[in-house]
Amino acid sequence: MGGNGFLGRHLVRALLARGANVRVFDRGHGGTQPSEGVAYFQGDLATGAGLDRALAGVDVVYHLISTTIPSTSNANPIYDVESNLLGTLRLLETMRAAGVNKIVFTSSGGTVYGNPGVVPVREDAPLQPISSYGIVKVAIEQYLRLNCALQQLNAAVLRLANPYGPGETRIGVHGVIPTFFAKAVANDPIEIWGDGSVIRDYIHVDDAVAALVQAANWTGFNLYNVGSGVGHSLIDILEVVKKVSGIVPNVVFHPSRSFDVKAIYLDIARITSETGWRPTVDLEQGCRMFWDAVKR
Amino acid sequence: MGGNGFLGRHLVRALLARGANVRVFDRGHGGTQPSEGVAYFQGDLATGAGLDRALAGVDVVYHLISTTIPSTSNANPIYDVESNLLGTLRLLETMRAAGVNKIVFTSSGGTVYGNPGVVPVREDAPLQPISSYGIVKVAIEQYLRLNCALQQLNAAVLRLANPYGPGETRIGVHGVIPTFFAKAVANDPIEIWGDGSVIRDYIHVDDAVAALVQAANWTGFNLYNVGSGVGHSLIDILEVVKKVSGIVPNVVFHPSRSFDVKAIYLDIARITSETGWRPTVDLEQGCRMFWDAVKR
Repeated sequence: MGGNGFLGRHLVRALLARGANVRVFDRGHGGTQPSEGVAYFQGDLATGAGLDRALAGVDVVYHLISTTIPSTSNANPIYDVESNLLGTLRLLETMRAAGVNKIVFTSSGGTVYGNPGVVPVREDAPLQPISSYGIVKVAIEQYLRLNCALQQLNAAVLRLANPYGPGETRIGVHGVIPTFFAKAVANDPIEIWGDGSVIRDYIHVDDAVAALVQAANWTGFNLYNVGSGVGHSLIDILEVVKKVSGIVPNVVFHPSRSFDVKAIYLDIARITSETGWRPTVDLEQGCRMFWDAVKR
Repeated sequence: MGGNGFLGRHLVRALLARGANVRVFDRGHGGTQPSEGVAYFQGDLATGAGLDRALAGVDVVYHLISTTIPSTSNANPIYDVESNLLGTLRLLETMRAAGVNKIVFTSSGGTVYGNPGVVPVREDAPLQPISSYGIVKVAIEQYLRLNCALQQLNAAVLRLANPYGPGETRIGVHGVIPTFFAKAVANDPIEIWGDGSVIRDYIHVDDAVAALVQAANWTGFNLYNVGSGVGHSLIDILEVVKKVSGIVPNVVFHPSRSFDVKAIYLDIARITSETGWRPTVDLEQGCRMFWDAVKR
């Protein structure tokens, strides 16, 4: 589910490398290159179209689809609920009908907590999202927990930090790191909303994928923060981009936005102690890897 | 919204007594007697039909509608989300268009927490509902909080315990107390799922209504547990029914149900300290009042 996105394509490669049979279910207008050895299913999570065909005989479903992004979800929460929440409920119904009892869901470490009172934020912190995107993620998490309790589902919920890495193509939409590098190279001004003190948890896509791969083995209901456990401001990122690329970019500062969480990074003690997973790539290493891939 | 239900009719009477102009918006098949001085609007929250006409010129919206009940909501979560969550999002949109900026919402103290780790349960306890009904209540709460932050809405969320009192007609569906009295009088067996040790917080409808009335004066976002603050088992209720009515009822025990929370009662320290509201009727008093009303 969502195997044509940035994270999805990395996950597909990792699963193929482990010898898995991989199916990708997506709306199919990603315009990305098909990968060898992958069966593609076109459909729409929002309406449920094509789900039953895609799910027949599957062992694990990775649910990476979101039809919205945090910054714009508040403009149309009805669409957000209809496409993402109702879509996921239809997915769970179809899985049940098809006898598929394992799902790994990418929730959002950056939005479900809202503005956390304490950082690093633990999984049991209050859930007070300030975007429809975050509210819908919480509701999906809760339906997954419910289905584990009542329907013998196995569900892993990964509250992901901001994954970054090579292959992120939606410049200016999601990823700060590729956007900063791309603008530095093009000599375009880097735009920052607020004073650049906004703090986030950035996780290298390889680390995120390692957690997703491992999650297929867990049973019952498991919910974990998956991040670097470290907070970096936008100014920090700028400095790393400068250091790694050797380019001094132009920066334009804009007023801050109401839907932006001010400072958040994730407490990853639960996943590291319970599963052994831990991040292996820090920000500077990850940026160097990204920069090397861009240069090739 | 929902002024023809048990709680709604009590609230309407209390608002009329205070000189308010009251409108009732409902699907209109409640079959209840219209009250003098009330303007009735027929419509459907689930589709939004009739909302705009009902909301024009209104100061405060009381949202008491639920199309589902906890025990059956898991059978059709899609319907639950479509009718209650999407319906509420349409209500909020229509309120905004009509310039109505105050809403009082009856959430559910008995379901949003799931099986709480600690009782009495505080508002900041983890929200782990074990029914779709509870998940949808949480999502509505979160959209109300979001709209207060971004849209200048004033929203009061009352996480109500189990209200009981005269006029509760849905015997066997919701209210334990009227059901037990009715069955005792009719000499029908009282059916208990589990061993009767299930503990709940029962609040007399007059106390619940007093909190609802007061909530119209609050500004910003306010979220409170509204209960008696005391837990009673079903066996306790049986004893009180016996004592008050003088009837010894027959009791039949059934296996417990998976969607039933085992023990919950509400910590009401937040509402009592911040607003001055407090419950005034304890279980035995409330049952005596109920029994006196039934006999008349």
